[in-house]
Amino acid sequence: MKMKLKLIFSFLLMLLCSSIECSHIPHPLDPLTPSEINLVRNIILKSYQTKHYNLTFHYVGLQEPDKPLIQSWLSSNTKTKTLLPPPRQAFVIVRFQKQSLEIIVDFSTRSIISTKLYKGQGYPILTFGEQTIASQLPFTYEPFKHSLNKRNINISNVLCAAFTVGWFGEEKSKRTVKVKCYYKNGSANLYARPLEGVAAVVDLDEMKIVGYSDRHVIPVPKAEGTEYRASKMKPPFGPMLKGIAVSQHDGPGFTIQGHSVSWANWVFHIGFDIQVGPIISLASIYDLENQKYREVLYKGLISEVFVPYQDPSEEWYYTTYFDCGEYGFGQTMSSLQPFTDCPANAVFLDAYYSASDGTPVKISNAFCIFEKYAGDIMWRHTEIAIPNEVITEVRSDVSLVVRSVSTVGNYDYVIDWEFKPSGSIKLGVGLTGILGIKAGTYTNTDQIKEDIHGTLLADNTIGIYHDHFFTYYLDLDIDGEANSFVKTNLETVRVKDQTIPRKSYWTVVKETARTEADARVNIGIKPSELLVVNPSKKTKQGNQIGYRLLPGPIVHPLLLTDDYPQIRGAFTNYNVWVTPYNKTEKWAGGLYVDHSRGDDTLAVWSLRDRKIENKDIVLWHTMGFHHVPSQEDFPVMPTLSGGFELRPTNFFESNPVLKTKSPKAVHWPNCTFQH
Amino acid sequence: MKMKLKLIFSFLLMLLCSSIECSHIPHPLDPLTPSEINLVRNIILKSYQTKHYNLTFHYVGLQEPDKPLIQSWLSSNTKTKTLLPPPRQAFVIVRFQKQSLEIIVDFSTRSIISTKLYKGQGYPILTFGEQTIASQLPFTYEPFKHSLNKRNINISNVLCAAFTVGWFGEEKSKRTVKVKCYYKNGSANLYARPLEGVAAVVDLDEMKIVGYSDRHVIPVPKAEGTEYRASKMKPPFGPMLKGIAVSQHDGPGFTIQGHSVSWANWVFHIGFDIQVGPIISLASIYDLENQKYREVLYKGLISEVFVPYQDPSEEWYYTTYFDCGEYGFGQTMSSLQPFTDCPANAVFLDAYYSASDGTPVKISNAFCIFEKYAGDIMWRHTEIAIPNEVITEVRSDVSLVVRSVSTVGNYDYVIDWEFKPSGSIKLGVGLTGILGIKAGTYTNTDQIKEDIHGTLLADNTIGIYHDHFFTYYLDLDIDGEANSFVKTNLETVRVKDQTIPRKSYWTVVKETARTEADARVNIGIKPSELLVVNPSKKTKQGNQIGYRLLPGPIVHPLLLTDDYPQIRGAFTNYNVWVTPYNKTEKWAGGLYVDHSRGDDTLAVWSLRDRKIENKDIVLWHTMGFHHVPSQEDFPVMPTLSGGFELRPTNFFESNPVLKTKSPKAVHWPNCTFQH
Repeated sequence: MKMKLKLIFSFLLMLLCSSIECSHIPHPLDPLTPSEINLVRNIILKSYQTKHYNLTFHYVGLQEPDKPLIQSWLSSNTKTKTLLPPPRQAFVIVRFQKQSLEIIVDFSTRSIISTKLYKGQGYPILTFGEQTIASQLPFTYEPFKHSLNKRNINISNVLCAAFTVGWFGEEKSKRTVKVKCYYKNGSANLYARPLEGVAAVVDLDEMKIVGYSDRHVIPVPKAEGTEYRASKMKPPFGPMLKGIAVSQHDGPGFTIQGHSVSWANWVFHIGFDIQVGPIISLASIYDLENQKYREVLYKGLISEVFVPYQDPSEEWYYTTYFDCGEYGFGQTMSSLQPFTDCPANAVFLDAYYSASDGTPVKISNAFCIFEKYAGDIMWRHTEIAIPNEVITEVRSDVSLVVRSVSTVGNYDYVIDWEFKPSGSIKLGVGLTGILGIKAGTYTNTDQIKEDIHGTLLADNTIGIYHDHFFTYYLDLDIDGEANSFVKTNLETVRVKDQTIPRKSYWTVVKETARTEADARVNIGIKPSELLVVNPSKKTKQGNQIGYRLLPGPIVHPLLLTDDYPQIRGAFTNYNVWVTPYNKTEKWAGGLYVDHSRGDDTLAVWSLRDRKIENKDIVLWHTMGFHHVPSQEDFPVMPTLSGGFELRPTNFFESNPVLKTKSPKAVHWPNCTFQH
Repeated sequence: MKMKLKLIFSFLLMLLCSSIECSHIPHPLDPLTPSEINLVRNIILKSYQTKHYNLTFHYVGLQEPDKPLIQSWLSSNTKTKTLLPPPRQAFVIVRFQKQSLEIIVDFSTRSIISTKLYKGQGYPILTFGEQTIASQLPFTYEPFKHSLNKRNINISNVLCAAFTVGWFGEEKSKRTVKVKCYYKNGSANLYARPLEGVAAVVDLDEMKIVGYSDRHVIPVPKAEGTEYRASKMKPPFGPMLKGIAVSQHDGPGFTIQGHSVSWANWVFHIGFDIQVGPIISLASIYDLENQKYREVLYKGLISEVFVPYQDPSEEWYYTTYFDCGEYGFGQTMSSLQPFTDCPANAVFLDAYYSASDGTPVKISNAFCIFEKYAGDIMWRHTEIAIPNEVITEVRSDVSLVVRSVSTVGNYDYVIDWEFKPSGSIKLGVGLTGILGIKAGTYTNTDQIKEDIHGTLLADNTIGIYHDHFFTYYLDLDIDGEANSFVKTNLETVRVKDQTIPRKSYWTVVKETARTEADARVNIGIKPSELLVVNPSKKTKQGNQIGYRLLPGPIVHPLLLTDDYPQIRGAFTNYNVWVTPYNKTEKWAGGLYVDHSRGDDTLAVWSLRDRKIENKDIVLWHTMGFHHVPSQEDFPVMPTLSGGFELRPTNFFESNPVLKTKSPKAVHWPNCTFQH
């Protein structure tokens, strides 16, 4: 009888699972599953597919349930696990008949519940499919063949790629890209061997070449020294490194259920989006003293990555990429390699995005999750002031990292979300991959009498100057939704009291931002600590409960503010902005970034100067790098790292890791290894 | 016969070794050995000891051989290993008859070769011995006993410590400290329980109390919540962390001979100094392409750590510590704990300094050296543009860390020197330990109507605002001695050519500093890359060979420049200074920092505005933190980290780790662990 019941139950579960992909307990913020992506495709194609018009899928993602729905589900779920999750829906952007349509698909009813024609400026993310087709067009285009002949280049060794072209004040802009080509003979490093001066303009809606230029013949840089595959390199190899591995003999300290992670005192959810890649949601930390989880981050993501190159010439002036909005920081995520991209103790998660035709594409090992132990110290103290006693207490630092790598053409971005038991969240970015390279006639700097807008890296090889701006969206909900943004300004005080031997000291003057204008900050101008606080909650001691931003590499844009790329990238004009939470304000550079005109950016939304005090607010933070390439960055670039920290500041009553014990002291392990 | 020869050889070796401490090949930059320290003591005491006057040893360190001597020894040593090392000598500062004497002792002749009476302002490092004696004086001082009675405090639970008092414009200053006391009943955290308002002034030369004040009775903060020893804590413990260890099944990749380290493509020497702690010298990197070692850093050290507190009240205004020059960043180094201060794969080195009486004191495990693998990526690229092929090449990042911890009273500073195969040197500082705490009457911020110059951390407990400035001395010798300092300024260019759709771009304008004045930089004011280059060497492509400074947390002083502490700490007025190499200019705040008047600091030397172009130059870099304490920093502070990077920039012809193979992919090891 018992057996029978079990079987029936299993059967019911199977039925249930086949419809909702239940390899795990479904979470309302889980990214779309492959079958959901397929369902979206089927539902939409049923309504739109005709013989005459192609329909392409540019954005297929979760239509995120409203915040109150998530929160009530979450609190109900935590307590009784009874409430059904909010209705699951997809938000979709398709191109159909040269128009962008925004479609919302509901999964429970398997129907389109809303369709909107987008009438604004700009176009959605480029699909891989159309980029590939566009890149093939030159091969059947006579003038291109002529260009190759002129250069004595065999067409079979040529590869092309499509590049977004931005907007430079044109009143009307078609959905065009420029296709530039490379000579791949003898090296995998195509970017190092551009056919400089040759570019085709392709209209993606028409899918044909609508413009072509062959300005000048520049020598294609040689293949020698451009290869980066170990299998193609010749000795001597080096420097040699001995094997090193992380081992956890009691197993990993984290658990993953579906996309929900629990580790040490943290819980959070890992989402995925085709446009921005990793989304960390509902990060809460367990407060040992109060014996409860407390909210920190409702949602965090890299909202846009702006990469303007700094060469004003015909072939390069338009190279001002928006890696999220134009190329999709999610669909460009690379499959992570075990043991090199992530350490041996990593666990991997896949991701799925929709292809042009709406079918799901799997990115295997899109995320890795691992406990990081870099040999660092969480806290310590040695006390020698007590006679006949030396006290030393040290706790070693272990953290949890969620990593992804987005490879947008030549560049690889390593994106880390690191959670520390102390309550800090560290957000790291590593830049590696291949530089944007222009071919030139020079082989030595002696020959150069003009501005070449870059560094001569090798013969005929110029690494163009550029910037990387990473704009993070951080919907902090510090111990609840209603928060304020506080600048703790450090101000010098001149001592007037003649009895005091000091002439000066500094003190803090707190300034709560009332409106968005108050909260725009260029870091580095004034010494300030920047905090998000919960104004209605205080510690026992009466301090405002908060988290502060400890900035990393700070970068300010150098383009003129009225220059077109900077109008589009105006969200980088400040390192910090604060906006009231608004579900539609998620993409700092807009949702339709290709050919955008900057009218749907953070900089524009923020002009309304809304109230932000004691409200659900979003902190936007831009960090980044000006990049003057150096020869070391060629042919592939050693990682350049940066990052920032969100650090609890009077969030806890005292050090939250005071009572953490260091992991057991493990003596040099005696291991047998499998190679 | 063979056996006999062996024995004779061993005997000869023994004879040799007993005279020169030859556990290793001696290196002219090795720190003084215990027997050398003893020898210094014996030689000096023989000359100076009398019945009537005490002589105390304040600085005993290596009298560093002149740079040309080191270099010719080094090049000879590399080639033929024949040249004898330069004469080995000690530089010593003693206090004798209330005067500071500078004595040079020669080891080969076992004699004093020079003695100089120091006539300038300021006094040498405080010895632990005199600090301990001074701290005992209150216990037999009647007014102090009275103060304790008034507070109902049992003297047996009181501990005192000596604090430097700086200089505040007095025309004459004696060698005084202030002794402040703590109630240690029920907690090891004495700093959390100050007897606020009570201070004795002790003249260290007279070794007696010469002043005393008991200004007001403030409640001593309670012991509860101040303890940091796990053994004294009550459950619940947490957050719990699972064991994690680094294992290297082929053994460590580095070798240490004496104090010389060789790892991957790096070689360098680890020195030790009582005043500044770790000294990294002769760091050179192997250039695979040119098959030779190339110089990078002749010598690097933390020259001074300036920690001004920001409370102008009677008890705190003078609290403006210089942790190197006053307390000795070397003699305050803590013994590192295996498995927590450093990972399981670390190797340790001891250090020795001289006590007040000249005898050697051992710091066991003063340094640890370990290979760090944090799961990071050295470089990577995924290529999907080549049809029917996905290329992914990833190299995992391993580096070598030299760590020490200086615990200056309450604060613990974790000092990391990290060498990367890519040529980068990362200099890390971690701040942990215990805050400077003032007792107050407040228990809640509601009660506070004045500036308390700090954060209320717990009942009656105020964490005082303060700064930490770390000033690094970096004698870079980039591929040779004659170097220049170059600012690569990034400047916006307005486009005038109407045919170009862009309105602006940025480019680089290089500016070589001619004199010291040109090289003073406040980072963050202008976008610049800061480089030290070798102007007479270029890459094949013609770029200047160099290293650049990638700054970390930037801090500018907030005290008025004419305020006494800032005059003494004027070397923090700029984040970057460059000086011509001068053997005597090593200590940014001077050699006699206690009661100093700022007349022997970097800021003063640099006023000469010497030429620095194409010369042997020293780069001084100040990084640091303004610290507004938060409740999380109590009772012991989670590490706050910062650091900066010295990165090769056109030093190599191309990526120097292109041909590095990742350490063998080690699968999850099957280990048996010893606890």
